[in-house]
Amino acid sequence: MYSLPESANQLIDEFSKLPGIGRKTAQRLTFFILKNEDEKAFALSKALVNVKEKIKHCSICFGITENDPCVICVDISRNENLLCVVENAHDIIIFEKTNSFEGKYHVLGGVLSPLDGIGPDDLNVTELLHRVKPEMEIILAMNPNVEGETTSLYLAKILSGKDVNISRLARGIPVGSDLGYIDSATLNRAMEGRTSV
Amino acid sequence: MYSLPESANQLIDEFSKLPGIGRKTAQRLTFFILKNEDEKAFALSKALVNVKEKIKHCSICFGITENDPCVICVDISRNENLLCVVENAHDIIIFEKTNSFEGKYHVLGGVLSPLDGIGPDDLNVTELLHRVKPEMEIILAMNPNVEGETTSLYLAKILSGKDVNISRLARGIPVGSDLGYIDSATLNRAMEGRTSV
Repeated sequence: MYSLPESANQLIDEFSKLPGIGRKTAQRLTFFILKNEDEKAFALSKALVNVKEKIKHCSICFGITENDPCVICVDISRNENLLCVVENAHDIIIFEKTNSFEGKYHVLGGVLSPLDGIGPDDLNVTELLHRVKPEMEIILAMNPNVEGETTSLYLAKILSGKDVNISRLARGIPVGSDLGYIDSATLNRAMEGRTSV
Repeated sequence: MYSLPESANQLIDEFSKLPGIGRKTAQRLTFFILKNEDEKAFALSKALVNVKEKIKHCSICFGITENDPCVICVDISRNENLLCVVENAHDIIIFEKTNSFEGKYHVLGGVLSPLDGIGPDDLNVTELLHRVKPEMEIILAMNPNVEGETTSLYLAKILSGKDVNISRLARGIPVGSDLGYIDSATLNRAMEGRTSV
């Protein structure tokens, strides 16, 4: 049976390995690459190598950076006593976009997940304990799912003897949403955490 | 404001240029690349360069190939007198998947589209006329949309004086579909083209 040239199949294979990209989309991307100028393909190719060669983890917060330590860790205008613990480096961007958090970050590199064989030793927990200083506020900003909650509880437990304030993100109804579409677990938490006006 | 390292932003930019990939997906792909082993990124990078360096257009049918002429054009077991004219190289795969077409192909490289400034000179029409031999059957297999139909009519007209049989794909209801979901234009064509049982 007729098949595509070997190099086209290889590119389809490689595209298919990316998350959310199936065989059909990979084929469409490959034909797009084939149809367009060489420069576009070479630019993407170069960017892939660059990102792997230049970007490393910050030795303090484990966020991604080209220069170690990262811009956030060396920023003296930020509050040293406010530490936001996040799952992944990506989450830092999400908080920075709000333009309102003035503290520093610590990237765990994942969450506890016994089913996937991920325990405390696979996360940057020891490094977190080394950064903790008395009277610091530690914000546990894991995702609001089972693994995130488990990880929060675990961290809260091992941090409890350290003379620090531990907080976590408020649960409640998202701004701009419609009460009719809110699940009851969220609505319960919003009711429990109601604030006086 | 904090932003991602320059090389990460560059990769996001390059991913965003691909069709169907928005800024958010590009960011997700970039973080996937950052998280995974270097080899995966390098393999994709290499495949992109390879595909551009190795693949060229077949000088006979204008399909894509690593060796010119392509495997289909040099295949002597195929019927020389049956020529399927398609829009893009990609369409060859679609027909080859059916495993039933025994003829050869000719890739137009697009369809007539005055609004986009694409006229007959931008397509491989002259090359098609050179391939046409008396008593050949030419199947016009453009997509069933306005541009495709226009291109079919144009080709049928310029081929009409050439002593060839011109045919096109049957219009009708797709196999496995439900009559309730068929648009009336298709149903009309299916009725007009009904066959005796």
